[in-house]
Amino acid sequence: MPKGGKDKEFVREIADPAVDFSQWYVDVVQKAELIDYAPVRGCIVFRPYGYNLWERTQAALDQRFKATGHQNAYFPLLIPESFLLREQQHVAGFTPEVLWVTMGGDEILQERLAIRPTSEAIIGPMYSRWVQSYRDLPILINQWCSVVRWEKATRPFLRTAEFLWQEGHTAHATAEEAQEESLRMLEVYRDFYENEMAIWVVPGQKTDSEKFPGALRTYSVEALMGDGRALQAATSHNLGQNFAQAYEIRYLDQAGQLQDAWTTSWGLSWRALGALIMVHGDARGLVLPPKMAPIQVVIVPIGQGADGEAVRTRARQLKEQLGEVARVHLDDRDEYTPGWKFNAWELRGVPLRLEIGPRDLREHQCVLVRRDTGDKLSSSQEGLDVQVRALLGEIQDNLLRRSRRRVEESTTEVHSLAEIEAVTSARQGFAAGGWCGDAACEEHVRQETGATIRNIPFQQQPVDRCAACGGEAKHYVLWARAY
Amino acid sequence: MPKGGKDKEFVREIADPAVDFSQWYVDVVQKAELIDYAPVRGCIVFRPYGYNLWERTQAALDQRFKATGHQNAYFPLLIPESFLLREQQHVAGFTPEVLWVTMGGDEILQERLAIRPTSEAIIGPMYSRWVQSYRDLPILINQWCSVVRWEKATRPFLRTAEFLWQEGHTAHATAEEAQEESLRMLEVYRDFYENEMAIWVVPGQKTDSEKFPGALRTYSVEALMGDGRALQAATSHNLGQNFAQAYEIRYLDQAGQLQDAWTTSWGLSWRALGALIMVHGDARGLVLPPKMAPIQVVIVPIGQGADGEAVRTRARQLKEQLGEVARVHLDDRDEYTPGWKFNAWELRGVPLRLEIGPRDLREHQCVLVRRDTGDKLSSSQEGLDVQVRALLGEIQDNLLRRSRRRVEESTTEVHSLAEIEAVTSARQGFAAGGWCGDAACEEHVRQETGATIRNIPFQQQPVDRCAACGGEAKHYVLWARAY
Repeated sequence: MPKGGKDKEFVREIADPAVDFSQWYVDVVQKAELIDYAPVRGCIVFRPYGYNLWERTQAALDQRFKATGHQNAYFPLLIPESFLLREQQHVAGFTPEVLWVTMGGDEILQERLAIRPTSEAIIGPMYSRWVQSYRDLPILINQWCSVVRWEKATRPFLRTAEFLWQEGHTAHATAEEAQEESLRMLEVYRDFYENEMAIWVVPGQKTDSEKFPGALRTYSVEALMGDGRALQAATSHNLGQNFAQAYEIRYLDQAGQLQDAWTTSWGLSWRALGALIMVHGDARGLVLPPKMAPIQVVIVPIGQGADGEAVRTRARQLKEQLGEVARVHLDDRDEYTPGWKFNAWELRGVPLRLEIGPRDLREHQCVLVRRDTGDKLSSSQEGLDVQVRALLGEIQDNLLRRSRRRVEESTTEVHSLAEIEAVTSARQGFAAGGWCGDAACEEHVRQETGATIRNIPFQQQPVDRCAACGGEAKHYVLWARAY
Repeated sequence: MPKGGKDKEFVREIADPAVDFSQWYVDVVQKAELIDYAPVRGCIVFRPYGYNLWERTQAALDQRFKATGHQNAYFPLLIPESFLLREQQHVAGFTPEVLWVTMGGDEILQERLAIRPTSEAIIGPMYSRWVQSYRDLPILINQWCSVVRWEKATRPFLRTAEFLWQEGHTAHATAEEAQEESLRMLEVYRDFYENEMAIWVVPGQKTDSEKFPGALRTYSVEALMGDGRALQAATSHNLGQNFAQAYEIRYLDQAGQLQDAWTTSWGLSWRALGALIMVHGDARGLVLPPKMAPIQVVIVPIGQGADGEAVRTRARQLKEQLGEVARVHLDDRDEYTPGWKFNAWELRGVPLRLEIGPRDLREHQCVLVRRDTGDKLSSSQEGLDVQVRALLGEIQDNLLRRSRRRVEESTTEVHSLAEIEAVTSARQGFAAGGWCGDAACEEHVRQETGATIRNIPFQQQPVDRCAACGGEAKHYVLWARAY
């Protein structure tokens, strides 16, 4: 077991994010025990500390889904090939990365079964069966599950063969309702990111070339990582009548006429945790916003012998006391030095550290250290719960402010292809400017610079010319290199 | 839409359980909208009303798992064939029903991947990596997921190709700890069944022939269904060192010696909902214990025109008021008659119905109808919340008492093979008696009568001779035909 003198070595275990952000990310997700690599291509194991972040994500979103009238359900993992083939654009978008089940025991299956890459193709046929009349609409269902897309590369949370997510699937009687639903759910995601994850995101519409295969319109919230690259943090699709027609989701309206329904789908995956890590993390590891943190306060008692015993006793009392207002962990292992523990809990992103030693005991105080700023403050043991609660609130707010400031400061107005390239190749965030609306122009930028249009923000700015081709601008858009 | 006069037809929609219990079950799960059949062999769709029961199962168990020190995690869905082959008995037990993934996109995979039938074979190798020292033990992890076993027959919740479950996997330094853990988790299941599901279960040990493939000992809780057949409601396995040896889960003990760890696994699946339905249900459909019911009280307003409007207004107020103490639904749809609604909510097992009409309004009262007994009682609108809370408690208790009584009254002492056959072939529940401990004798009974030894109850009764062969008895056991 590492003892004193190992502190330095410990910090060296993760790469410097300013030098190699990518290696830093991989180091942090493993050393903080969020994940481990599995002995299956492209798959990871979601370890308890990481999974706890997902449980909080689920709880926060699920409460919002239910508040907006949705219910959970569960549809089969396996989709017969013939079902997947029914929506043409959808097939083209997903089949290259589908895993196929061809055998059950020793028997060769008559029809191949796809492991769901997404569930439209199995949910559509069920909705078709459940919907007859306008009275059966809307259907507002969400599913928490895992899906598989056979990716070559693995990047924990960001690109994995199997991933955990939620997928909402709704059916409506009118185009207006479906449109309202797609926007409502995008707003749920925005609210979740802002108020739980402390991440500032830009909501907007995807260009046609970046739409979900088969969708009428795709909306996204886009976040900005610590290295200046963008990340699509969640999407919401207005599927129009495409899937309703492919899967025959039809209803009799009040006039007795048969109509095709209008459907939507929307999803957020464990990518969200990738964003959490890359937005807030720093050279010492994870920085977790208090609302997401599995442990909000870690207590580290300092001191040995008889003094140490008195300190530990008090530490246990403080844990009890603070347990009323926060998720508290007492690290009283004796095989590690306090310094080692400080590093270990900083790596794991615990928002607040409480240190208590023999002198603190005599002076009836303790030391609180903020993970977000590193600030240390002495605090009386009286009223500590009030102090801790206030600090956790401040940390949450500060992280959101920081994230918002980064988005604002890293959004640079551009007026030419050279400027787009300058901003995005240096990974300085979003290159913001006019776009003519032409897919060929969009593709040209991508090929020249590697940057894509992240979205067409709802909050439009006045633009005159297309920054890429100089033609007349139709939209204000954000370009960036993205994960 | 069915209007008045349809009430009778509605009740006829489900089979009489006294005549055809099996058909009754299939009718109930579909008509109550718990599930629908999926267009994939052996798979079902878990609809919102059914899934809600699963969410409550998850919440109740998860809280107990965490209280006993476990954390959740998530391991990959796909297991390389070579991993599955490492524990011999395990392989033999599971490979006949494994689904194999052989292609990714157009590419043929170098090694086949099994869709997990259970996760020992993917979790073992990870624990091997995580455990080095005795300090790394115990590992106490649970996973909520779906698993697939390629079954020919489909019986919703009881026998499906894909099913939802939880699987706990723990590793310990000593045989004693692993044994304690297996028993602790069986007790968690017993407590869950008794205190949430209102189901009386018999905890005990499985015979060697009914053990989990590769386990040292398997424990189960056994429940008794409305038709007198038994159902294995959950299992907990002490895996000894078999899996630790196969997957090399080893640790250095305090003396610096390399030791094999001791592991356990334990699981409960959506079969639990099959038990819920078959233990409590009756000729009118589901009967849900209040703690599990998605809707605990349904309010049905009665009356038309101006009277009806006043009734509805009051019904909405009552819903608000009762919402503080119960999960309340107001059914104010005007396209259905009150009688139709009564049937519909009885079918769905709602514990308490509140009827309110114009006369009730004048007399400031309402009518409460218990689903478990059919009892009707007038109640003042004053103090209704207290009344409702008390009634829900009584219903929960009554259902448990009923379930316990059934187990007690349906446990018949047997002293001969003929008696075992008489009890079990008439599906009169458990045939209880002595068993010599010989697997051949056990198998003989199975072949002659179709009954299996459900378990060797922890609570042993004095026995003298083996009821099956007349030899010396080693254990008191329960035989039954089982699902």
